[in-house]
Amino acid sequence: MAWQRQETLGVSPLREILGRLAPYREAVDAEIVRLVTEPSRSVASLYGMMRYHLGWADRGLQPTEARAGKRLRPILCLLTCEATSGRYDRALPAASAVELLHNFSLIHDDIEDQDAERHGRSTVWSIWGVAQGINTGDAMFALARIALHALFTRPDVPGERAVTVLRRFDETTLALCQGQYLDLAFEAREDVDVDDYLEMIWGKTSALLAFATEAGAQLGGATDEQIALYRRFGESLGLAFQMIDDELGVWGDTRVTGKPVGADRFQRKKSLPVVHALCALSGSSADELRRLYGAEQPLSDEQVGRVIALLEESGAQEFVRRLADRAQAQAMQALVQAAPQGKAGQLLRELATALLGRQY
Amino acid sequence: MAWQRQETLGVSPLREILGRLAPYREAVDAEIVRLVTEPSRSVASLYGMMRYHLGWADRGLQPTEARAGKRLRPILCLLTCEATSGRYDRALPAASAVELLHNFSLIHDDIEDQDAERHGRSTVWSIWGVAQGINTGDAMFALARIALHALFTRPDVPGERAVTVLRRFDETTLALCQGQYLDLAFEAREDVDVDDYLEMIWGKTSALLAFATEAGAQLGGATDEQIALYRRFGESLGLAFQMIDDELGVWGDTRVTGKPVGADRFQRKKSLPVVHALCALSGSSADELRRLYGAEQPLSDEQVGRVIALLEESGAQEFVRRLADRAQAQAMQALVQAAPQGKAGQLLRELATALLGRQY
Repeated sequence: MAWQRQETLGVSPLREILGRLAPYREAVDAEIVRLVTEPSRSVASLYGMMRYHLGWADRGLQPTEARAGKRLRPILCLLTCEATSGRYDRALPAASAVELLHNFSLIHDDIEDQDAERHGRSTVWSIWGVAQGINTGDAMFALARIALHALFTRPDVPGERAVTVLRRFDETTLALCQGQYLDLAFEAREDVDVDDYLEMIWGKTSALLAFATEAGAQLGGATDEQIALYRRFGESLGLAFQMIDDELGVWGDTRVTGKPVGADRFQRKKSLPVVHALCALSGSSADELRRLYGAEQPLSDEQVGRVIALLEESGAQEFVRRLADRAQAQAMQALVQAAPQGKAGQLLRELATALLGRQY
Repeated sequence: MAWQRQETLGVSPLREILGRLAPYREAVDAEIVRLVTEPSRSVASLYGMMRYHLGWADRGLQPTEARAGKRLRPILCLLTCEATSGRYDRALPAASAVELLHNFSLIHDDIEDQDAERHGRSTVWSIWGVAQGINTGDAMFALARIALHALFTRPDVPGERAVTVLRRFDETTLALCQGQYLDLAFEAREDVDVDDYLEMIWGKTSALLAFATEAGAQLGGATDEQIALYRRFGESLGLAFQMIDDELGVWGDTRVTGKPVGADRFQRKKSLPVVHALCALSGSSADELRRLYGAEQPLSDEQVGRVIALLEESGAQEFVRRLADRAQAQAMQALVQAAPQGKAGQLLRELATALLGRQY
């Protein structure tokens, strides 16, 4: 959600740089469009549901000009490849796989969290039912893998690098499922600590960003040391990004609307401010937060205000900012050490700064 | 379900040959056990749910001696490899991937069909909820791919053959999703004809069996012609198998209990006898079948009797048997032409005969 939030707030260094990144986004989308085109008329609706989710079809499955995603993950992959090799095109299969995997996980997350809307549009399952929703996600998962096989047809990609990218991709998909498992399991747990939280967001957010930059460097022909640095860059970027997202989830819209984003999920999900507060508070404050947070009913505006007051009492906002700053510093340090070259290197630095500077 | 059915009927050439195939089953299971072992304690329950589904853990996630599956798909893969090369071990990664993919699809099918039980055991989602059920299936899907990477560590598997197997596997996963899409879509359609049905079961059943035998031959170092023959064998075996399964679904247990298996799904699902009858019948018989088949409420015993009478009036049983016999003949013909060698070749012929001879 946070990818959009900045616009709501009227701040737009991210939007500005995204404008300059349009050629990369278009190159990824051209590759993805090809993949989500039905091989026969009989399965047109399956591919139509995938295109709907990606923002290219309306609920009648007709082509539409609806806003598509920002494609930040695949763009990071392409920029990393160009910053190490001077060209981005050989990373297109990996970039497409990253975006399809991300969207597969959104389709399934929406079912798992029973979210009927995403960015103001009805989710796949809420239109076509849970059964087709699950299967549409599965098909996109399969397509993500199929996207990668184009690597083997490129003369500029050595076979062993392509094989490594496939293996790392598959390990990433498993990390994603492990992160999702923890996220769901934490909903029912009261004893989640910061280490648990970090393990969860590592799988849910960092692993895919780490793969995006690692694969870009791998396909750019980088050295092992550079590849490891780009991986660390993506990984720390993901951690910082998720923490800032969590902060914005509580205090972002509050600054505009006086109400936190999605009070309902804020109630169930173990975001970093809540994890911190549940650990840091004691006595009657801890009991009150636990009671409010565990309530079956949606919270009233007044109760939401109490939750935020308790989070602030625990020093959650400063805590989250400190951790996010540390992850951000690690990301930028790894990027500097990786020494990205040329125009793409410059864009990579700017994009990372804009992403992390959505703050707070 | 049909894999079990024969035992219920007390006929056991399949069970007899399965006894002799135990070493292959054990080799596959050893590989799969390694894959479904948690990398850290924090995700133990995720792997526990996968082991539960595979029959190796109870609902408390403790190890159990519960009956595991027959592993027919991976065994076909191993036998094909041995029948072309004299050894089966190099096909173990592909065989494990086949079994994990099959089980991923069962975990998700159970949610999509809202089946609370499978073979008398509670399904994953019915114990741990839809959200964890979806994610557990996703994790098994990821593990299926990870299983294949072991091919690249084997000196007896040329890299290009390993790459081909990975690509064909990914194409198979997409075919599976397309078949599942059709199966779900057909529930709401009255105009499904035999060609539609064949396309659906090709994706749901044949594609994975075709991959199993194709990959076995590919990894056994077979020629392109042999690989194509083994693929055709697996494909036709899958078609015949599914048709016999559909026949048994209506008349199998009826011969023992007087009642068809699972009258409820028999009501929703477009199995071959029903597809034939809906096309072949006209006038009041067609109307009556359509009404009974489309009923919202579970059918009474009397109504089930009427459905079967109408299927018989349409000549559905003879029709299904004729189509199954044709697919069976094609499977056996392809197998003979492929000329499988040695003890494994003999087992392959016997297993195919036993599978198809569950009949009718």
